[in-house]
Amino acid sequence: MIQELKAADGRLAVLIAGVGGAVSTTMIAGVMAARRGLAKPIGSVTQMGRMRRQDGREQLIKEMVPIAGLDSLVFGGWDIFPDNALEAARCAEVLSEKDLKGVADELATIRPMAAAFDPRWAKRLHGTHTLQGATRREMIEHLRGDIRRFMADNKCSRAVVLWAASTEIFLPMTDEHRSLESLDRAIDANNTEVISPSMCYAYAALSEGVPFIMGAPNLCVDIPAMWELAAQKHVPIAGKDFKSGQTLMKTVLAPMFKTRLLGVSGWFSTNILGNRDGEVLDDPDNFKTKEVSKLSVIESILDADEQPDLYKDIYHKVRINYYPPRKDNKEAWDNIDLFGWMGYPMEIKVNFLCRDSILAAPIALDLVLFSDLAARAGMSGIQTWLSFFCKSPMHDFDHVPEHDLFTQWRIVKQTLRTLVGEKEPDYLS
Amino acid sequence: MIQELKAADGRLAVLIAGVGGAVSTTMIAGVMAARRGLAKPIGSVTQMGRMRRQDGREQLIKEMVPIAGLDSLVFGGWDIFPDNALEAARCAEVLSEKDLKGVADELATIRPMAAAFDPRWAKRLHGTHTLQGATRREMIEHLRGDIRRFMADNKCSRAVVLWAASTEIFLPMTDEHRSLESLDRAIDANNTEVISPSMCYAYAALSEGVPFIMGAPNLCVDIPAMWELAAQKHVPIAGKDFKSGQTLMKTVLAPMFKTRLLGVSGWFSTNILGNRDGEVLDDPDNFKTKEVSKLSVIESILDADEQPDLYKDIYHKVRINYYPPRKDNKEAWDNIDLFGWMGYPMEIKVNFLCRDSILAAPIALDLVLFSDLAARAGMSGIQTWLSFFCKSPMHDFDHVPEHDLFTQWRIVKQTLRTLVGEKEPDYLS
Amino acid sequence: MIQELKAADGRLAVLIAGVGGAVSTTMIAGVMAARRGLAKPIGSVTQMGRMRRQDGREQLIKEMVPIAGLDSLVFGGWDIFPDNALEAARCAEVLSEKDLKGVADELATIRPMAAAFDPRWAKRLHGTHTLQGATRREMIEHLRGDIRRFMADNKCSRAVVLWAASTEIFLPMTDEHRSLESLDRAIDANNTEVISPSMCYAYAALSEGVPFIMGAPNLCVDIPAMWELAAQKHVPIAGKDFKSGQTLMKTVLAPMFKTRLLGVSGWFSTNILGNRDGEVLDDPDNFKTKEVSKLSVIESILDADEQPDLYKDIYHKVRINYYPPRKDNKEAWDNIDLFGWMGYPMEIKVNFLCRDSILAAPIALDLVLFSDLAARAGMSGIQTWLSFFCKSPMHDFDHVPEHDLFTQWRIVKQTLRTLVGEKEPDYLS
Amino acid sequence: MIQELKAADGRLAVLIAGVGGAVSTTMIAGVMAARRGLAKPIGSVTQMGRMRRQDGREQLIKEMVPIAGLDSLVFGGWDIFPDNALEAARCAEVLSEKDLKGVADELATIRPMAAAFDPRWAKRLHGTHTLQGATRREMIEHLRGDIRRFMADNKCSRAVVLWAASTEIFLPMTDEHRSLESLDRAIDANNTEVISPSMCYAYAALSEGVPFIMGAPNLCVDIPAMWELAAQKHVPIAGKDFKSGQTLMKTVLAPMFKTRLLGVSGWFSTNILGNRDGEVLDDPDNFKTKEVSKLSVIESILDADEQPDLYKDIYHKVRINYYPPRKDNKEAWDNIDLFGWMGYPMEIKVNFLCRDSILAAPIALDLVLFSDLAARAGMSGIQTWLSFFCKSPMHDFDHVPEHDLFTQWRIVKQTLRTLVGEKEPDYLS
Repeated sequence: MIQELKAADGRLAVLIAGVGGAVSTTMIAGVMAARRGLAKPIGSVTQMGRMRRQDGREQLIKEMVPIAGLDSLVFGGWDIFPDNALEAARCAEVLSEKDLKGVADELATIRPMAAAFDPRWAKRLHGTHTLQGATRREMIEHLRGDIRRFMADNKCSRAVVLWAASTEIFLPMTDEHRSLESLDRAIDANNTEVISPSMCYAYAALSEGVPFIMGAPNLCVDIPAMWELAAQKHVPIAGKDFKSGQTLMKTVLAPMFKTRLLGVSGWFSTNILGNRDGEVLDDPDNFKTKEVSKLSVIESILDADEQPDLYKDIYHKVRINYYPPRKDNKEAWDNIDLFGWMGYPMEIKVNFLCRDSILAAPIALDLVLFSDLAARAGMSGIQTWLSFFCKSPMHDFDHVPEHDLFTQWRIVKQTLRTLVGEKEPDYLS
Repeated sequence: MIQELKAADGRLAVLIAGVGGAVSTTMIAGVMAARRGLAKPIGSVTQMGRMRRQDGREQLIKEMVPIAGLDSLVFGGWDIFPDNALEAARCAEVLSEKDLKGVADELATIRPMAAAFDPRWAKRLHGTHTLQGATRREMIEHLRGDIRRFMADNKCSRAVVLWAASTEIFLPMTDEHRSLESLDRAIDANNTEVISPSMCYAYAALSEGVPFIMGAPNLCVDIPAMWELAAQKHVPIAGKDFKSGQTLMKTVLAPMFKTRLLGVSGWFSTNILGNRDGEVLDDPDNFKTKEVSKLSVIESILDADEQPDLYKDIYHKVRINYYPPRKDNKEAWDNIDLFGWMGYPMEIKVNFLCRDSILAAPIALDLVLFSDLAARAGMSGIQTWLSFFCKSPMHDFDHVPEHDLFTQWRIVKQTLRTLVGEKEPDYLS
Repeated sequence: MIQELKAADGRLAVLIAGVGGAVSTTMIAGVMAARRGLAKPIGSVTQMGRMRRQDGREQLIKEMVPIAGLDSLVFGGWDIFPDNALEAARCAEVLSEKDLKGVADELATIRPMAAAFDPRWAKRLHGTHTLQGATRREMIEHLRGDIRRFMADNKCSRAVVLWAASTEIFLPMTDEHRSLESLDRAIDANNTEVISPSMCYAYAALSEGVPFIMGAPNLCVDIPAMWELAAQKHVPIAGKDFKSGQTLMKTVLAPMFKTRLLGVSGWFSTNILGNRDGEVLDDPDNFKTKEVSKLSVIESILDADEQPDLYKDIYHKVRINYYPPRKDNKEAWDNIDLFGWMGYPMEIKVNFLCRDSILAAPIALDLVLFSDLAARAGMSGIQTWLSFFCKSPMHDFDHVPEHDLFTQWRIVKQTLRTLVGEKEPDYLS
Repeated sequence: MIQELKAADGRLAVLIAGVGGAVSTTMIAGVMAARRGLAKPIGSVTQMGRMRRQDGREQLIKEMVPIAGLDSLVFGGWDIFPDNALEAARCAEVLSEKDLKGVADELATIRPMAAAFDPRWAKRLHGTHTLQGATRREMIEHLRGDIRRFMADNKCSRAVVLWAASTEIFLPMTDEHRSLESLDRAIDANNTEVISPSMCYAYAALSEGVPFIMGAPNLCVDIPAMWELAAQKHVPIAGKDFKSGQTLMKTVLAPMFKTRLLGVSGWFSTNILGNRDGEVLDDPDNFKTKEVSKLSVIESILDADEQPDLYKDIYHKVRINYYPPRKDNKEAWDNIDLFGWMGYPMEIKVNFLCRDSILAAPIALDLVLFSDLAARAGMSGIQTWLSFFCKSPMHDFDHVPEHDLFTQWRIVKQTLRTLVGEKEPDYLS
C-alpha cells in the first residue's frame, strides 16, 4: 500500500478555516513559541511521541519518519472576523499575555482571508469578514484561488487545509452526497440546504490536491461524494471532531470496563464551557451534530451484542452547557453507573477541569503533519489510522470505526512501521 | 515453553488463607450463586471474557482453553475466626441477606481450619482460631497436613492455595530470603522477624506441589528463595495484591497521559473504607506495605527518564483512611494535576464509589483458575502473564513489571494463544 | 393575630393528590412505621425538632405547641393509577422490601380515589384512574364530595389537602387568576387553558374549609383569586415546591457567601434522576415551571443591587436530566465560581447523592401538621412562616420571599413562640 | 458593658508575627491596592459588610461604627526570614506579578524585625532572622521594645499585634498556664517546654496595652494566665485559627443538617496544599494542634446529647496533606454520610478549590480592625463576638464556644448594635 515516501522538502502551508479561533491561535502561538524555544509542544505526538523500533530502541517518532519540521510551517487561513491572530488570541483568552508576548510580533502578521460563510449553518455567530453574496460554486472557486495565491506568495511546496471553525447544524446524509456527480449538481444548483460552507473548503482543498482535515463534527467530507473526489485527486482526508476532553476519557474508561468485564447501566456526561464553541453549541441544531458525534463512542466500545449481560441497557446522555464564567476552561463532569460481581452497583464520577484549546491544539498540529506525511506517502482517501485523534472517526460503509484509544494508538504505530518497512517488536515476551 | 496441556479433570480444591474474609466469602458465595443460576459472574475473565481467535471469531475464553469448571471447585481454607462462611459473610456486610439466602445452606458447610497466625504481623487483629505456640516449621508442617487431608477428604485431584487475608507489616527483603537454603535455616531457627505467617502458607503449598497466589501486598513469594522452591517443585506462583479499585484506574489513566503526551505534576490519592482491611491498614506498619505496592505504578508507567519534560517532577501521594461508616464500600478520590500545550495546567478528579470485595472477588477467582491452568500446562515459577490482575506484579531481578492494563491484557491473550498454538489475528488492518 | 389555639382533638384526614407517588407513599409508610416503633421520623421538624423556650430550656416543638399526633392521622387521596399504596410504594422503589414489610398490611388498605386529571398539563403521564370527561367545575364538585365522604367515612374532625403530584406545565398568571370572580367565570366557561387540574383540588379544599398545600411548583394557589377564597373561608394555604435537595443546599451556601462577602460569578446546577418526577420534567414545558422555581433563589439571596461588586454578574443555570438508572436516587452536581480578596477566583463543587422522596417525605408531613396547627390557631391565607419548607415560598405582591434557610428557621420559631405567647430567649449573650 | 467609644484618630500600627508569610503579604498587598483603588477588599466585613439599622435602612458597617480607615494603617512585624514584603509575597506565589506590580514600591519598604523563634516549636522551618540565644523573658522584653519603637518611629497612636505565623506543636494546658503568677515563674525559669514563642508575642503585646490576635490554632492566649494579664491591662484578645475554607463550610452545612434534622454517621475531610503552612502541618506534632482545632466543630454543632438518634455515632476524621504542586491553592474534599427519613443513607461531597491566603487575608484585616474597635470601646479580655472569624473560638471555662456561622454573625451584629445603642430591627415580621 505504501509507495515511495517523499521527503519533507520545502515549506508547508497550513491553511485553517477559523484561523482566528481559540484552537487555531493556540496552536499557532505554541508552534511559534516552540520554534523560538520558549515552550514545549506538550501533547503533540509528532513532536514528543516515542515508539519502539524493531530493534528494541525507543525513539522519537519524528526521527523515525520524515515529518515536516516546525520551521517549515507557514500559517494562514480564513475567518469571519478580520482580526489578526494576535488580536484573535487575546480575544480567545486561552493564553496568558505573558505567553503571547514572546510571539506577538509574528502572530500579528497573520491576517485572515475572508471566509466562506452562511449564518444559517452556524447560528449565534455574526461575522462580517465573509464572501458576500457568493454562490456555493463561487465560494469554492474563491477558496481555490486563495490556496493557490497563498502558496505562491509564501513559496510553499505543499499545503494542508484544516477546518478548526465551528460546528455546523446537523445535516443527515442525503442523495446529493452520495456521488461526486450529484454533489456537483447540488453545488451548481446552489442548494444551500445540503451544501454546507465547510464542504466548500473541503471541495476546494481536494480539487487543489491538498489534504483536508475536519476538526469539527460536521458531515462535510464524511460522504461518498468527497471520498470519490479524494480518490480522484489522490489526496488524504481525515477527521472528524478533535478528541480532546470528555470523549478522550471515555475512550479510555470504556475499554477498561470491557476488559475487566464490568457492567454499565448508565453514563451521564455534562460539560460547561464559555467560549465561542460553547455559544454555538447552545443552539439545539448545532448541538445535535455534536451530540451524534459524542454518543456513538460508548455503544461502539461496549458492544451490547457481544456482552448483553453487561451492556444491553446503557442509558447514555450527553449535555453541553454554555457557561460564560469559564471561558475556554471547559469543565466536564461524568457519572458512570457500573455493576460488578453478582450485579452489585458502583459509581465513578470524573471531574475534568480541562482547557479546550490546550488539549485540541496539539491534535490539530498532529493531524496537519500526519496528513502531509500521508500525502507524501501516496496514501489517499480516508486516513483511518488518524482515528486516534478523532471523536468520531471517519469510515466508509464497509468498516466500523475504532474508538478504543489504545487500539487506535497501536494502529498509528503499525501504520508508521509499515511506512518504514518494519514489523512490530516482540516486546510482550 | 508450553508442554502438554492437561485437561481439567476431577475436582479442584481452592484453599484460602483468610477464607472468612470479605473477599473470600464474596467470591465463594458468588460462585455458588452462579452454579445455581442465581447470579452472573460479572467481572470474571475466565467466566465471561472473550477474545478473537486466529480465524477472526470472537469466542469465550473458557471455550478456547480448558479452564476448570465452577462445578468442580471445592472451597476450604483457614481463618483466625472460627465462623463458618455464612456467618463470616454476614459479618462482612458485603452481600445482601437476600443474595446470601440463595446459597446459605452451602456456605454454612464451609468451616475454616485453624490459621497460622502471628499478631505482630497483622496489628489490630485479634483472632483466636489459630495454631497456638507453633514454630514456623511446625506451622508449615501443619498446613501441609491440612492441604493433604482436605484434598483426600474432598476427593480433589488438584489444589490451589490463595492468600486473601490481611496485609502484613512491611518487610524489606533480607539475606535470609535470598536462597532456599538460607530461608530454610531461618525457618529452622524460628526467626519470626523475617519469616511471616504468609510465607508458611506459601512454603506449605509449594512443598505440596500446589500453586500459590498472593492477593495482598505481602513480600511472601516475592523472594528468590520461593522462586527456587517453585522451580524445584514445578509449580506456578502469582501475585501480588489484587488490582481492584484506585490502582486499576491509575493503570488506565496513566497510559492515556503517556500516549497523549500530557505532563503530570502531581497525583494525590485518598481512600476511605471501613472493613477489616481498612482497620489493619490504619496501622502505619501495615500501611507501609500497601503504600509501597501502590506507589510504584505511576513512576513505572510515566517514565521520567524517557520523558523528563513531562514526568520528572510527579508528586505522588497515596493515603488510606479507616472510616467505619462505609464498611466494605470503599471510596477513592484522586486528584491529578496535569499540564498540556505550552505547559498550561489542568486537573482531573476521579471519585470512585466502589465495593472492595465486589471488585476483588472475580480477580481472586480468575487467579485461582488461571494458576490451575498454568499448572496443567507445566508453567512453573512467576506467572508474569497474570500481572493483569495485580497491583504489584511479581517479577525477577532481570525484568521490570508491566503496569499498563491494556498491555497486560495483551499479554494475557498472547499467553492463551500460545497455549493453543495460535497467532495474533491481524485485526488492526 | 393569633386567637384561641384549639387543641388537636379527633382525627385528621390527610388527603393527597398523587397519593400513589413516591413522596406520598414514602411519607405514609414512614408515619406508619413510626407509629409502630419501627423507624424514626428523621428529618421531621414536628416530630424531632427542638427549640429553646423563653426560660432557657431546650424542648421538643411538639411538646411546646399542640401538634396533631401521628396516631390521629388518616391517609387517603387521589391518583391517576388505581394501585393501592403498597403496590405504589413497591413501584416507586424508594423503600426496601424489608421496610415495607413492617407496614404492608396497613399500606394495602389505602386505595386512591379517581383523580382529576388533564394529560395536557402533565405531558408524558398516561393515567387511567381519572374522572372521565369532567368539566373543571365538575371536577371541583366531585373532589368536594370526595373530601366530605372521606371525612365522614373515617370519622375525621379535620382535614388537610396536599398536592404531592407532578409538576404541571408552565402557566403565567393571567387576568382570569386575578380575582375570585374572574376565576369562577373561567371555571364555569371550562377554560382548560388557564385552570389547571391542581387548581381544582385547591378550590375544592378551600371551599370545604380545608387547608391546602402545594408541594410542586405549580402556579395553583399562588394567585390573588385563591388568596381571596382562602380569606373568605378562613383557611391557611402554603407552598410551594418542597425544598429538598439542591435548592436546600443553595439556601445555605448563598447566605454564607453573602455573610462572608465572597463574590459569585457563576452557579451551574445539574441533576440526574430517574423517577416519575424526572420523566415529567424531561418535557420542556413542565421543566419551565420547575426552572422558574429553582432560579429565583440565588438572585433573591445574593442581591445585586445591594452588593453590585459581588453579585451583579452571576450566571445561574439549572438543568434537570431524566436518567433512569438512578430511579428515585436523585443526584445533584453544582459548580460555583467564586471570587475573593482582590478578585481571585475559587470554585466549590457539591455532589449531593440524595434521595428525592426521603428528603421530601418529612417536609410533606411537617407542612400537613403545621397547616393543621395554623388552622386551629385561626391563621388564614398564605402561611409565609412555612417558607422554611419551600423552594419557592408563596408571597403576596407587597412582600418579597425569604429564601435564606436560617432566617426562615428563625421565622418558624418566632411564629411558634407567638402562638404560645413567648419572647425570643436572649441566648446570644 | 460598653463605655465611651473613642474615635479612630491617628495611625494604627499593625504588627504581625510572620509578616512575610502568605496570609500577611496577601493582606498587606490587598490593603495597599484598595487604598490606591486598584482592587476591592472582597471578603472583608469591615470594608464591604452591611447590616440593617434599627430604622430599617441597610448600611455599611463602617458607616455605622468608627472603624479605623485603611489609610491610617501602618504595617510592620517580625519574620524568621529577612526578605522584605515584596520578596516574601513573590515567594508565596499567591498574588500574580501583575497585581504585585501596582504596590511593589510600597511593599518593598516593609522589612521584618528579627523574630522570637524556637525551631522545636515549628518543625520543618529553618529561619535565620531570629533573636539568637534569647531566653523567653529576653524575647518578651525585646518584642516590647520593638512595639514601642515601631509606634514611635511611625507616629502611631494605637497598635494591634497579630500572630499570622505557623502552627506550633501541640501543647496541652499545664499548671504553669493557670495563673499569671505561675506563668511568670515559668518564663523566669525559661521553661521552654511550656512557654511557646507565640506566648512571648502575646505577653509583650498585652504588657504594652496592645490587643493581641491569635490566627493559628496555638494554645498561646487560650489560658487563664493570659486572660488575667488581659484583664489587668484592659486589652482585648481574640482568636483562634482563621476560619477560612473547609471549616467555614462545615459551620454552614452542620447547622443545616441540625435544622433539617438530618442524621450524620460520618464526615471525612481531607486537604491538599503546598504552601509553608502545609509543610509545617506535615509534621504530626504540628498537625495535632490543627486537628484538635478542626475536630471540635462538628461535635459542638451536632450535639449528640440533644439529638442522640441523629448524632451519637458521628465518625469525624480530618486529614491535611502536604502536596507541593498546588502551592497556596489549597483544595479540600469532604465526604459526609447522612441519613434521613426512616434511616435511609445519603451522601454529600464537597470539593472546595480555594486559596488559603485569599480567604484568610480579609479575616486577618477584620480581626485587626475589630480588635482595635473593641479596645477603643473599652472591651477587654476574650472577644467572643469575633468567633465568627475563628475556627476554634476562644472561651473561658464557664462558656461553650459557638460554631454556627449564622449564629456567630448575629452575635457580631448584636455587639455592633450595642456599641451604638440600638436594638435589633423587627425584620422577621
